[in-house]
Amino acid sequence: MAETDSRHPDSTRRSERSRRAIYEAALGLVIEVGYARTTIEGIASRAGVGKQTIYRWWPSKAAVLLEAFLDLVAPVDPAHDHFPDTGDLEADLKAVLRASVDELTDPRYEGPTRALAAAGIVDETVGAEFLEKLLDPGLKLYTERLAAAQEAGDADPGIDPRIATELFVGPLLHRWLLRTLPLTHDYTDRIVEYALYGLRPRG
Amino acid sequence: MAETDSRHPDSTRRSERSRRAIYEAALGLVIEVGYARTTIEGIASRAGVGKQTIYRWWPSKAAVLLEAFLDLVAPVDPAHDHFPDTGDLEADLKAVLRASVDELTDPRYEGPTRALAAAGIVDETVGAEFLEKLLDPGLKLYTERLAAAQEAGDADPGIDPRIATELFVGPLLHRWLLRTLPLTHDYTDRIVEYALYGLRPRG
Repeated sequence: MAETDSRHPDSTRRSERSRRAIYEAALGLVIEVGYARTTIEGIASRAGVGKQTIYRWWPSKAAVLLEAFLDLVAPVDPAHDHFPDTGDLEADLKAVLRASVDELTDPRYEGPTRALAAAGIVDETVGAEFLEKLLDPGLKLYTERLAAAQEAGDADPGIDPRIATELFVGPLLHRWLLRTLPLTHDYTDRIVEYALYGLRPRG
Repeated sequence: MAETDSRHPDSTRRSERSRRAIYEAALGLVIEVGYARTTIEGIASRAGVGKQTIYRWWPSKAAVLLEAFLDLVAPVDPAHDHFPDTGDLEADLKAVLRASVDELTDPRYEGPTRALAAAGIVDETVGAEFLEKLLDPGLKLYTERLAAAQEAGDADPGIDPRIATELFVGPLLHRWLLRTLPLTHDYTDRIVEYALYGLRPRG
């Protein structure tokens, strides 16, 4: 308890080099052996640091992995900081989904994303942490964009924008996670069109 | 090689009791320790059979688990043998999705379904086997129902019914796998309405 300060150092006190090595080791291990068999000891050994270094900075394995993952994907995830609003809802949705397709099918991100998704699917605690830090912020941006479209008269005011969000992200992740068919821009473009205009005969 | 016959006995030659014990052991183990750490040896030990018994009947761990799982869910999965066609597309879709919600949230099925989904997400070979035997047959029934609706003038003839299928199963599995929000009948009802009528203003 005398070490309270050093357990929660601000990020400037972290050694950038060790932090990078730990992130890399954590993501490498989770791809190779899966979430369940990835340990703090294993990460420390691979990163060339003492395991106390990891315990000082992160409270759990899940926390290390989540931070490593966010660090990996943040620069390329378009839905992380903003969702475009050009005034053309269809074009904006297509652009964001195409960027997500590119990210999910990029070999650098695919392995860790799959490993963490699988961990969250079987482990409710891990799932809740990833949901809060990773998924929900992205879903919120979709929901806000759809609510803005309702304001602008581009979407039915009677729909629940949070539920409508899943018409876009659901098919995207379904096809990617379960590998039913290739995940392409053409696929997500069609999903956007079907969801906006409906499957009923248009006349 | 002299044992070719006994390696592929027809199902009548299998001991029903051993088969049940093996299924139960396989599903129990995969829930407790995950797919990666479930072994043929572990299943055999828990089922009280020799591991050669398992190897005689199934070529791999994935095959045992898949068969155990199909045996578990087949009686309750409405999309397994047929998809209703009452002439009311909206009602039929809602009925099938509500039944899927009940199944996915049933504690008897939730554990093994999650364990196998997670295994398929990280292991492409396992994923391909589950896709072929488990997922694709269900997706095909949706696709056929939507094609019948196109014939009947209830769905736009320009849509691709295979892609449209994912507007229904995508949101269902997204919410269930990632536990974003509770998976309810109300949710799947809304998804059906939004997908059929579209998110654009209706007027």
